Amino acid sequence: MQNKILLGQNKISVALQERSYDIVIGKNALENLVGFLATKTYSKIFIITDENVAKLHLPRLKAIIPNAEIVITEAGEQTKSFSFLEKICEEILAKGIDRKSLIIAFGGGVIGDLSGFIAAILLRGIDFVQIPTTLLSCVDSSVGGKTAINSKSGKNLIGSFYQPKLVICDLNFLATLPLREIKAGYGEVVKYGLIRDLEFFEFLEQNHQRIFSLDYEVMAKIITRSCQIKAEIVAADERESGDRALLNFGHTFGHTFETEAKYSNELLHGEAVALGMLMAAKMSQDFGWISAADFTRILAHFKDCDLVTNPNQIRQNWNEENLTNHLFHDKKHENKNLTFILLKKIGTAVVEKNVELKKFKKVLQEFLIAKQ
Amino acid sequence: MQNKILLGQNKISVALQERSYDIVIGKNALENLVGFLATKTYSKIFIITDENVAKLHLPRLKAIIPNAEIVITEAGEQTKSFSFLEKICEEILAKGIDRKSLIIAFGGGVIGDLSGFIAAILLRGIDFVQIPTTLLSCVDSSVGGKTAINSKSGKNLIGSFYQPKLVICDLNFLATLPLREIKAGYGEVVKYGLIRDLEFFEFLEQNHQRIFSLDYEVMAKIITRSCQIKAEIVAADERESGDRALLNFGHTFGHTFETEAKYSNELLHGEAVALGMLMAAKMSQDFGWISAADFTRILAHFKDCDLVTNPNQIRQNWNEENLTNHLFHDKKHENKNLTFILLKKIGTAVVEKNVELKKFKKVLQEFLIAKQ
Repeated sequence: MQNKILLGQNKISVALQERSYDIVIGKNALENLVGFLATKTYSKIFIITDENVAKLHLPRLKAIIPNAEIVITEAGEQTKSFSFLEKICEEILAKGIDRKSLIIAFGGGVIGDLSGFIAAILLRGIDFVQIPTTLLSCVDSSVGGKTAINSKSGKNLIGSFYQPKLVICDLNFLATLPLREIKAGYGEVVKYGLIRDLEFFEFLEQNHQRIFSLDYEVMAKIITRSCQIKAEIVAADERESGDRALLNFGHTFGHTFETEAKYSNELLHGEAVALGMLMAAKMSQDFGWISAADFTRILAHFKDCDLVTNPNQIRQNWNEENLTNHLFHDKKHENKNLTFILLKKIGTAVVEKNVELKKFKKVLQEFLIAKQ
Repeated sequence: MQNKILLGQNKISVALQERSYDIVIGKNALENLVGFLATKTYSKIFIITDENVAKLHLPRLKAIIPNAEIVITEAGEQTKSFSFLEKICEEILAKGIDRKSLIIAFGGGVIGDLSGFIAAILLRGIDFVQIPTTLLSCVDSSVGGKTAINSKSGKNLIGSFYQPKLVICDLNFLATLPLREIKAGYGEVVKYGLIRDLEFFEFLEQNHQRIFSLDYEVMAKIITRSCQIKAEIVAADERESGDRALLNFGHTFGHTFETEAKYSNELLHGEAVALGMLMAAKMSQDFGWISAADFTRILAHFKDCDLVTNPNQIRQNWNEENLTNHLFHDKKHENKNLTFILLKKIGTAVVEKNVELKKFKKVLQEFLIAKQ
């Protein structure tokens, strides 16, 4: 795996014909914004960010684009709503925007999803750049063009496929993250190894402590490899009619717990995904695909990393019926057939349709009882 | 022109690669929905319509798709708003929708713009079919994929380019339209002749009375030719980076009056466009492009059709300063350069950028004073 990645500033291209773009990853990667803007003639630049990110990092971005208009929202998932969508769209339109304006999404996944959707629909679509400030958004939401807000009926049910013009993952921003958030983001990193690259998984088994101690060299490597894998999958299936669904590994199980926890701080998205991956790995074992030894190996790594491996670590009294019902409010279940992403082996995932509900229930019950 | 169009049910293809679709035009064209649905496996069909259309025409549509879910909104421009967008999205999501669902927009331009945008953003985009019920929406908004709602800062400022899978123009629906609405729609029909097809303009000069008396044979011809021209222009420039702007002929002048009239019933969109086209024709004459005789010929046809040819027919006391200011809230004016669509001759339009404000003012003053 190591020879695929260079040290220092790395660049990944997401190949989507006229919608292609680069992801730049590295220490001080933000400086790449200067060169990007020099090749463009934007009439006006809007930065959308939240209060927390603004406090910590906005001065660095403003130093590069002092004339940008700043739109600051509350921090938190509640901003992925119609009311914030309307508020921010109207604010930007009132400030004056034209088709040659640029929106910069500056923050974590919430800011990226919301701002990307705003860019998609303002004047029927204007350019936007993603500058993720969390590990989770660097390796997941900022790449691939999924933008959305939430509905009363579920998360991310209203949105667009809308690709950014550039993604900048500046490692310096990650230095201010709490360890819990780094670990939640790491869940999505392990995902790429499990679904696509055994060698990468092995690298993570050996180097995870250097990630949690924010070794920039290792951080650059794992973000780059994660984005490479995501870029390949997205390039082959932009609108998720096939293999893009592999990126949902761990998400179906994860969603049921997130929904039951009401998307609160009790269970972060990355934590839910980690738990969900382990449950999906167990289901893969039940299908006779991965061995008991493989499952144990994955579990051991999650324990080494101190990830969530059991729902009882979060809460003692999960309601099994509720968890099962949440399954059917997941938009990925067309016509109420259950679809799971499962592992054929470590490094190879498949989309498995028409999974029987009882197979889900078996895994759920095991995890609700177990103390692993 | 006549040999380009067949009698009876006509079919136009809008060539946009994987987003290509057909427009079917004719008496009882609605029957084509049966064949279309037979080739698909939609899990659920939602019809979005307004109270007026529901009362007049919903039974015919329900007879074809009895199991469809019906969403009925108020009639009127006020529904192209964030609040109606949210309300309808939540209603549809609560009723249960998946990626294999279909939305049918059943009504005039407002329903088409709103429902198309809803289809574009629900689950990041599901299929939709346009069934326009007004002449204006048959020849204009239902073709080409522009969907939108309005902002406090202006009309259609929030939306998507999102193409339908099929457009059905059933002439029977037009029989219930008031003559004023037929004439407003006719404004957009003349537009196609003026910007692209002298022969078509000549046909209209000779046959307009048969349109106003709802002669189905002539109606089918003029809608078909209008859609052909729009389809050609859209296929060449889907996202309006160039020649698609030609379709805005008459719209810049028209917008200033519509905005000043607060998009009320005082001045319908098609009426504003008719007036705007005449003013743009006058500006084209000022540029030395079309002759005084050409302008007089266009004016004569508009008078024959009893279209709006002078703002004083609408209101005596227009505020010239307001009208001028509205120019700068039109999203088509990037960087505040004035862009007008002008005629090189009857049947040939061009996009003219960097038009001086005084040229606009000269035409505006002439029309505010004149009694033509």
